[in-house]
Amino acid sequence: MGDDADSRSRMLRTAARLLQRQGYHATGLRQILSESGAPRGSLYFHFPGGKEQLAVEAVHAMSGRISRLIGQMLAAYTDPAEAIEAFTHGFAAVLRQSDYAEGCPVATVTLEAAASSEAIRAACDAAYVDWQRQIRDYLAASGVAPERVDDLATLVLAAAEGGLILSRARRDIQPLATIATQLGAILRSAGARPKRRKRP
Amino acid sequence: MGDDADSRSRMLRTAARLLQRQGYHATGLRQILSESGAPRGSLYFHFPGGKEQLAVEAVHAMSGRISRLIGQMLAAYTDPAEAIEAFTHGFAAVLRQSDYAEGCPVATVTLEAAASSEAIRAACDAAYVDWQRQIRDYLAASGVAPERVDDLATLVLAAAEGGLILSRARRDIQPLATIATQLGAILRSAGARPKRRKRP
Repeated sequence: MGDDADSRSRMLRTAARLLQRQGYHATGLRQILSESGAPRGSLYFHFPGGKEQLAVEAVHAMSGRISRLIGQMLAAYTDPAEAIEAFTHGFAAVLRQSDYAEGCPVATVTLEAAASSEAIRAACDAAYVDWQRQIRDYLAASGVAPERVDDLATLVLAAAEGGLILSRARRDIQPLATIATQLGAILRSAGARPKRRKRP
Repeated sequence: MGDDADSRSRMLRTAARLLQRQGYHATGLRQILSESGAPRGSLYFHFPGGKEQLAVEAVHAMSGRISRLIGQMLAAYTDPAEAIEAFTHGFAAVLRQSDYAEGCPVATVTLEAAASSEAIRAACDAAYVDWQRQIRDYLAASGVAPERVDDLATLVLAAAEGGLILSRARRDIQPLATIATQLGAILRSAGARPKRRKRP
């Protein structure tokens, strides 16, 4: 079963990478098989729901990875404005390193497939709900008024997603960098303050 | 030549509609031909560059249509906060009426194809540059400080685009409505004031 589990995770990793670079419709099962090196027979054994199931699980996996990155980023900065700037600059670095091919892996799948697959839509929504909750909790712990944290977390997430689109269209990180600075200023004026570091 | 021009515009309209609903990769030339009713021979006559050229021209056409809508919306409201709210609510209505299938027609194409086609990327970027310039000019005429109008216009456009993605994933206009309210407040605090209506 070791090989089987390995095939499964290789197929998922390959699917996630292809979804991020080229989206849902351009990614075929044949390409996932050939690039993962997994045997054809194992595809429907591990993913009886075919491409839709692979996409749902790949979105969950990518969502979890980004969620951990958000958590690390937020934990590394006591100042929310600095955290959001570091976060968007992290995204900008991925854009540049991939020659503007790799943005948010969930956005492309949402726009292509949410209207036609309820399972994929729900997986994408769960990703956004999770990321937004992390941002909200961080803002709440940084002194932003409780009645404002949900709305500001929505704004931060939406503006970052939109900034990624504009930067991919421009082939320039400038729109994303502008968004980072603007969001930092908005959070400061909403009362976000550096949390005091815990003394060791 | 009347029939020919008609075939051309029907193919473009069909391509634009399909790109908005299902994106670039899911849209095939065969579907564009069958849904537009245009004769096969006229496809490469009018669009020797094939699907890529059709997509570029469809993005230009959609961009122009949205640009006119933005212009009408901005002209109808003297208060920038009201204008941005009306603008995002207009998008929300399109989402609901299309059962969340029709969002921003340029965003999906950007995420799918900007990295692989320079012509498509440039068409998408031109759309965003045009929309952003309209928003910036409107903010400048509404009392926002000149050094802030470019950055705020980037934020407005990015947040609206991101809000559309979140609303499509949620199947709910709430994220977009939240963005509208937040942007309105941000513009007010940036000094945007209702312009005085011209006396007739």
